[in-house]
Amino acid sequence: MARLALVCEYDGTDFVGWQAQANGRSVQAVLTQAVSTVADEPVVIHGAGRTDAGVHAERQVAHFDTGARRSARQWLLGINSNLPEDVSLRWVGEVPARFDARRSARWREYRYTLVSQATRPVLTRRHVWWLRDRLDCAAMTAAASHWLGERDFSAFRAAQCQSTTPMRRMLRIRISESRGRIEFEFRANAFLYHMVRNLVGALVRVGRGEVLPHWGRELIDGRDRRRGAETAPAQGLALVGIAYADEFGVPGATG
Amino acid sequence: MARLALVCEYDGTDFVGWQAQANGRSVQAVLTQAVSTVADEPVVIHGAGRTDAGVHAERQVAHFDTGARRSARQWLLGINSNLPEDVSLRWVGEVPARFDARRSARWREYRYTLVSQATRPVLTRRHVWWLRDRLDCAAMTAAASHWLGERDFSAFRAAQCQSTTPMRRMLRIRISESRGRIEFEFRANAFLYHMVRNLVGALVRVGRGEVLPHWGRELIDGRDRRRGAETAPAQGLALVGIAYADEFGVPGATG
Repeated sequence: MARLALVCEYDGTDFVGWQAQANGRSVQAVLTQAVSTVADEPVVIHGAGRTDAGVHAERQVAHFDTGARRSARQWLLGINSNLPEDVSLRWVGEVPARFDARRSARWREYRYTLVSQATRPVLTRRHVWWLRDRLDCAAMTAAASHWLGERDFSAFRAAQCQSTTPMRRMLRIRISESRGRIEFEFRANAFLYHMVRNLVGALVRVGRGEVLPHWGRELIDGRDRRRGAETAPAQGLALVGIAYADEFGVPGATG
Repeated sequence: MARLALVCEYDGTDFVGWQAQANGRSVQAVLTQAVSTVADEPVVIHGAGRTDAGVHAERQVAHFDTGARRSARQWLLGINSNLPEDVSLRWVGEVPARFDARRSARWREYRYTLVSQATRPVLTRRHVWWLRDRLDCAAMTAAASHWLGERDFSAFRAAQCQSTTPMRRMLRIRISESRGRIEFEFRANAFLYHMVRNLVGALVRVGRGEVLPHWGRELIDGRDRRRGAETAPAQGLALVGIAYADEFGVPGATG
């Protein structure tokens, strides 16, 4: 038996999410079928984290165990030729048996993209949240500064969240704008269910000027999801990277 | 009667192209229906230029004449609410009767996007040409330098081209690369049929090292389409802007 890790990209538009479910098309199920076909045996795919219905991934990481022996190139080309056009493998390779896509992850990074313009976007429509409002990026950056470090993120946690703790360590938040396209990047050791979309929903309230940046602090200190803002829609969200210790050699993140 | 100009964006994936045809869904027909609905009378839409099946537009310009009186805001919201998700109006406004979307254009700009990476792209798949090859951008830039200015572009003209002259004035060519994503921008007074896609096809031969940059000059001087390279696929191409004299006030180009 050997353990292999993979890095994949997918367009979440036509998926019910990462996780295999009784009904609907999941990324995990599509990958399981493609990998099992190439391995010529049933394979179980363990993902680094779940993404919701409609959420995209530039770099999602998973691992699987198999008795099949193939070169890295055979795995890569074989699996890719068995995947539909909305999923693609970027990398696959053997890793030590102690590697676990979820538990070995040092941090994850998500990017949320919002387009602020008067008219409906077309070319980017499946990958952004469109708002007519002008948003104040400086105010949003000030609000987000209250969320850095080891914090209790109960205020941004969906009711269905199954995590045993609401504590997460936010390592970096970057907000940038170019011609009405606003990108929010969040890097943390891990995320709670709907956390990024709830953070973005709160930042939009600040950006619109409905509340002052300091509300970002009141919100997290209050630890009450009912006081939060709306959850930003799924299609603007993408998992962009997952980082591991160099010893594993898994290119799950670009920086 | 008043003359109005419009700036629109579309995703060419599911269109037979700009021009209305006997069979198939065209951008012109979809716009004609939406504008006629808001005008409450049949309207004829005159585009600045045709884009082929599968070619996108960030900014296409058109004009129409109508006896209907609506505010700019009423036109914009009304037309947009009658358009499908793959077409959107960015702007509409009254222009002098001498304005003609095609004839008044000073220059057009197209961008061709190519992704050079080992594995199939997913999130950008409808808007790029994917090649596994590494391409030499410096060599391509050198080759393209031979195409600037007033030139006979017969070597890059499709057999079906209906233009009376093969002469075009190329104002600017920019080639840039970032993480395997290569963008080619071409600005000219006008373009021949398939010209940008044929130019990109030729540049890819240079980028791969199959021919030296000087071949760009031999090719244009030879004026023989049969000596050219393959035509790059439609989905990587987007019309990104059309410029007019300031007096018309039509925001067809960003710079």
